[in-house]
Amino acid sequence: MERFSVRREGLAMPKQVDHRGRREAIARALWRVVERRGVTQLTMRVVAREAGMSLGQLQHYFASRTAMLSFAMDFASEQTSARVQQGLEKLGDRPHPRDVLRLTLAEMLPLHADARATSRMSAAYVLEALHDRAVHEQARRGLVQGRSLVEQLVRQAIVDGHIDSGRDPATETNLLLALTGFTSLIELDVIEPEDALAAIDVHLDRLFSVPQLRKGE
Amino acid sequence: MERFSVRREGLAMPKQVDHRGRREAIARALWRVVERRGVTQLTMRVVAREAGMSLGQLQHYFASRTAMLSFAMDFASEQTSARVQQGLEKLGDRPHPRDVLRLTLAEMLPLHADARATSRMSAAYVLEALHDRAVHEQARRGLVQGRSLVEQLVRQAIVDGHIDSGRDPATETNLLLALTGFTSLIELDVIEPEDALAAIDVHLDRLFSVPQLRKGE
Repeated sequence: MERFSVRREGLAMPKQVDHRGRREAIARALWRVVERRGVTQLTMRVVAREAGMSLGQLQHYFASRTAMLSFAMDFASEQTSARVQQGLEKLGDRPHPRDVLRLTLAEMLPLHADARATSRMSAAYVLEALHDRAVHEQARRGLVQGRSLVEQLVRQAIVDGHIDSGRDPATETNLLLALTGFTSLIELDVIEPEDALAAIDVHLDRLFSVPQLRKGE
Repeated sequence: MERFSVRREGLAMPKQVDHRGRREAIARALWRVVERRGVTQLTMRVVAREAGMSLGQLQHYFASRTAMLSFAMDFASEQTSARVQQGLEKLGDRPHPRDVLRLTLAEMLPLHADARATSRMSAAYVLEALHDRAVHEQARRGLVQGRSLVEQLVRQAIVDGHIDSGRDPATETNLLLALTGFTSLIELDVIEPEDALAAIDVHLDRLFSVPQLRKGE
């Protein structure tokens, strides 16, 4: 019986993969609409046209605009994590926490096409969250999780002597996350991407500068 | 002839004041729509209803959605400046640059009803700017001006010995402006307003800590 059920799953898989693949293609179409035309143009009809399908076909994959937006946001977060993960692999087996933070922050800013798409998706989602309780909860949960990962990293770096033990991990985490505030300055061409990265480096250098006295304790 | 023209302006004034007053009332109605229903609901028809007028009456004051949005954004910036100005007056004749920066940053975050309205207006405007060249230019100009005021203040604080002369004014200015990144963390209840203010205080304390050696130079 069990083998039969496994076999059934096996047979069903190509269709499931296709379902997931279609949903991701729709999410990418949604990102393109957000990126090129803005969230105000984001209707199921417009996304269906961008994805090259009928409204009815789109509704087969997503029952509502919110469901579609919610999936597209989760997919954006996954893609950002995947980009960070790819970067981390290049840093070797035990990357320095400073490099991990720099990579993470850089991938959250609109510094290249993929990051710009997920960053704009994210900004649109925050605005949407202000007027939709379910979206608010999903966006909050995602950010709380991300914040908690950064705080763990900061705490470990303090334990390992990379960050001064006099620093408050919660406050340092909040200051690191606030650096995503460079997004609008970059998007509006107020500062250059290199200026944002230079400022992030200055901030990280200060965070990871342990006074010699303490280092020798 | 000149006296006559002055008199004519005098006679015309009440009507002009009323015109400005009506435009401000429309801008506030627009903010309420952005705040409560979101930028996706922002049409001239919806704003007219919120302002208690007909679409035709609204069109008498603003020829297009962009013109209306542009005025509402300028008015939001003016209101933010006015709130900062009011705060500065309480700080006395020669306020410390640290206090000026703290006040400015605090008024840019959604920490109370008025600031939340202008902050949401501003976030909506940035998203709109990504897809509208004129809006992009207006938003950029506003931010460049604001950034330049902060940089002047940082440079003067270095000259006056309040900030270490080893600091780069441009980078410090960018790091200060990035702190507006607390906006989404506060809006999504990821951190409390007090956490944001505490982190801003830590950042400002570090910025304004001049090493004793240099101080005595």
